Amino acid sequence: MNEFDIIHRFFNRPGSGDGVTLGIGDDAAVVRVPPGYELVLAMDTLIHGVHFPESTAADDIGWKALAVNLSDLAAMGAEPCWATLSLTLPEADESWLQAFADGFFEMADKHRVSLIGGDLCRGPLTVTVQAHGLVPAGQAITRHGAVPGDLIYVTGHLGDAGYALASAVAGSSDYAYFRERLDRPQPRVRTGVALRGIASSAIDLSDGLAGDIRHIMKASYCGAVIEAGRLPLSEPLRSAVDEETGSRLALTSGDDYELCFTVSADQAGTLESRMASIGETVKQVGKITASSDLIFRAADGEQHYSAYSHFG
Amino acid sequence: MNEFDIIHRFFNRPGSGDGVTLGIGDDAAVVRVPPGYELVLAMDTLIHGVHFPESTAADDIGWKALAVNLSDLAAMGAEPCWATLSLTLPEADESWLQAFADGFFEMADKHRVSLIGGDLCRGPLTVTVQAHGLVPAGQAITRHGAVPGDLIYVTGHLGDAGYALASAVAGSSDYAYFRERLDRPQPRVRTGVALRGIASSAIDLSDGLAGDIRHIMKASYCGAVIEAGRLPLSEPLRSAVDEETGSRLALTSGDDYELCFTVSADQAGTLESRMASIGETVKQVGKITASSDLIFRAADGEQHYSAYSHFG
Repeated sequence: MNEFDIIHRFFNRPGSGDGVTLGIGDDAAVVRVPPGYELVLAMDTLIHGVHFPESTAADDIGWKALAVNLSDLAAMGAEPCWATLSLTLPEADESWLQAFADGFFEMADKHRVSLIGGDLCRGPLTVTVQAHGLVPAGQAITRHGAVPGDLIYVTGHLGDAGYALASAVAGSSDYAYFRERLDRPQPRVRTGVALRGIASSAIDLSDGLAGDIRHIMKASYCGAVIEAGRLPLSEPLRSAVDEETGSRLALTSGDDYELCFTVSADQAGTLESRMASIGETVKQVGKITASSDLIFRAADGEQHYSAYSHFG
Repeated sequence: MNEFDIIHRFFNRPGSGDGVTLGIGDDAAVVRVPPGYELVLAMDTLIHGVHFPESTAADDIGWKALAVNLSDLAAMGAEPCWATLSLTLPEADESWLQAFADGFFEMADKHRVSLIGGDLCRGPLTVTVQAHGLVPAGQAITRHGAVPGDLIYVTGHLGDAGYALASAVAGSSDYAYFRERLDRPQPRVRTGVALRGIASSAIDLSDGLAGDIRHIMKASYCGAVIEAGRLPLSEPLRSAVDEETGSRLALTSGDDYELCFTVSADQAGTLESRMASIGETVKQVGKITASSDLIFRAADGEQHYSAYSHFG
């Protein structure tokens, strides 16, 4: 198999998305953006041993490589439509490729994303995906609209993926749960779309709330207070660790791919009813302040935390 | 420096391109495609030691990573506008980053491309770029429109980049010329745009004419005859090697990033005048046939060649 055979056999599947004039198989893909919409573009790379443990199954790598990019689109309030994929791998192992493609397309089909192009090379295992989404012009949710008094919310549960990387997880009866949370993040696409016109700012949680909220603070020139007691921890995490460890994981461990967003107090009711209508749960965890500080308020005092950093 | 400092310091430059609602610094970029246009997307990855020699300077890597993608857009007849960049590198070396960014933006500025987003991670040196271009709806040039009787053309000179990789090049008085041809490919953007409405098919030459013309043959269900005596070899290449070696390099070595395209015989005059008006030279090297064979016709007979292949 050369690279063209591999692409044809594993990756050239007819997509379910609209607007594709020309997909895989030419020098470039050609797509149409409908009138009145803007295009939203997110590109993330996953590297073997950095962004996923070496033990990660190929189908989970495929799933996650797309999911983390759809999570970025969700944070912008965009509806995903197309993806491109550059896959670098040390050898053309057919069963690995089949599993990787299965995981990738499972995530793609779930969100009606068509794979329209990319690249395939030999080298150290690295996966780069660019996800493309659509948003009505002017309605993208950014990081720079938060104002003092806005309420800070997060989706789902925090800290599970971080605990999946802890050595203690191996003895947990909920090992499969934690590993699924790490390996198969669920991008909050429906929630992101539902936040259009409500959220004043949003970001997806890839490096931990304590670090990621700082991007909103910096872009919006504001501060934040996070209440430890309000952090949404899953039942398995509450069973596995004490409260302080749970809070620390929720704040500083990455890979949750939940959304963090801000909403003005007078929109809180609209938010609640909209979330109820799509069956999603969100949790208020703090408030935007006029200072430039990030304060983490626990029962026993205030603390500061920082997030995961490459080249830190 | 963490990754955000690096992005801010080296990569967050105001772009010269239009249509950018939101560039670097959020979860995703937001762009506008003008009415009546389609968006053309090309993604290519360059890997240290595979797509460029280990001796390649950082500024040349930056230039080439963007140039090879603009070459794909050129083959579609698209005008480039935006790029995203995922850069994976083993360490945050400031002088390397500065040189890389200088080379990247030199190419970007030449073609009015704005860098609007991407990713930065630690790992083996790998550069993935996605280039975005615009083409009037329905006017993208593909690989599947060639018909028997069409004339086959190429731009520029072929084989120089391949010779730059040959061991003999070290002794050449034209070493700098060959190395420039390998390290700083010039994407044929103006030529590609000028081919809209004239070329029946096009492809960019990344793996060698003998292999790349096969993609047109396969997509267009046709064959081709290439005339050895017509292959455009540069003066330095003619001085460095005998005619047979020159032809072999022109046909089978990669990295030329010239365009190969087909034009119906009755459009040949229009092509000539349009190329003259933009000051570009193209050379007719063969003809599309109704068979499914690729024939290379030399003075001493007919031969078959194949191209570079990953996983070959």
